[in-house]
Amino acid sequence: MISFEDFAPGQVRQLGSVVVDRDEMVTFARRFDPQPFHLDEEAGKASIFGRLAASGWFTAGLWMRLYTDAILLRSDALGSPGGDEIAWPAPVFAGDELFASMEVIETRRSASKPWMGLVTLRAWMRRGAPDSDGTDSDDVVYRARFTGMYGSREQPRP
Amino acid sequence: MISFEDFAPGQVRQLGSVVVDRDEMVTFARRFDPQPFHLDEEAGKASIFGRLAASGWFTAGLWMRLYTDAILLRSDALGSPGGDEIAWPAPVFAGDELFASMEVIETRRSASKPWMGLVTLRAWMRRGAPDSDGTDSDDVVYRARFTGMYGSREQPRP
Repeated sequence: MISFEDFAPGQVRQLGSVVVDRDEMVTFARRFDPQPFHLDEEAGKASIFGRLAASGWFTAGLWMRLYTDAILLRSDALGSPGGDEIAWPAPVFAGDELFASMEVIETRRSASKPWMGLVTLRAWMRRGAPDSDGTDSDDVVYRARFTGMYGSREQPRP
Repeated sequence: MISFEDFAPGQVRQLGSVVVDRDEMVTFARRFDPQPFHLDEEAGKASIFGRLAASGWFTAGLWMRLYTDAILLRSDALGSPGGDEIAWPAPVFAGDELFASMEVIETRRSASKPWMGLVTLRAWMRRGAPDSDGTDSDDVVYRARFTGMYGSREQPRP
């Protein structure tokens, strides 16, 4: 079980990869972000993206799922109050393979709730060739910085 | 058609409301954020949320949809590079009615692409009683600050 005490600044973790499914990408956009360039190939071509492009919120969700599987479900995670960066520096297209990573920036124990620790993370996702390990491309499509709350092993919740 | 020139700092817009559907909330979490307190009533009760709670990414998606319907689909919107705040100050529960708002913080024309303007927005969503107008509660469940790109009416894209 991963607890607050297991995080330390500078730790980098590869969180795995996901291939963007076109149908799922469009279904997501239809519900949450139905702008034409997220729904329709022709509208995508005419847009500044040049192709049908994913909603940035879908991209964020893909990173979140990889983080959940790799870290949260093996941890005593307690949610997140939010963060101070979310960025989509390049569009995401159907069929892209996206490689998710995280780095621990800062850790501190909650003063008011010592059974809880706050872990500030940098998140990012790159587009890679299907056979790449995600490190040979600088095509970053997603960046975020946020704080996760984790239970403490040394000072358990009363 | 809403263009860059129609935005000005200080403008506040109410974007409508949405009632959180329990099945949709759990289906979203199962795909993008399958932490137990987002999936299961008992796990939610045992968590710091006290009840089955929505994934923050689902909440963000609900705001995005209301913004899309109220603004983006009536505009010359060109996507978003990202933002510098995303926050979930209180949990969201099934059946909540959430009222979305936005305020224009800053507008500036792109120097390199004068046919495009950058509009920095503050976004928020409050929980309201089903019959409220969303202004009588300070129970804010979502906040964000990001930049939207809009086409210019005065200097159209060449």
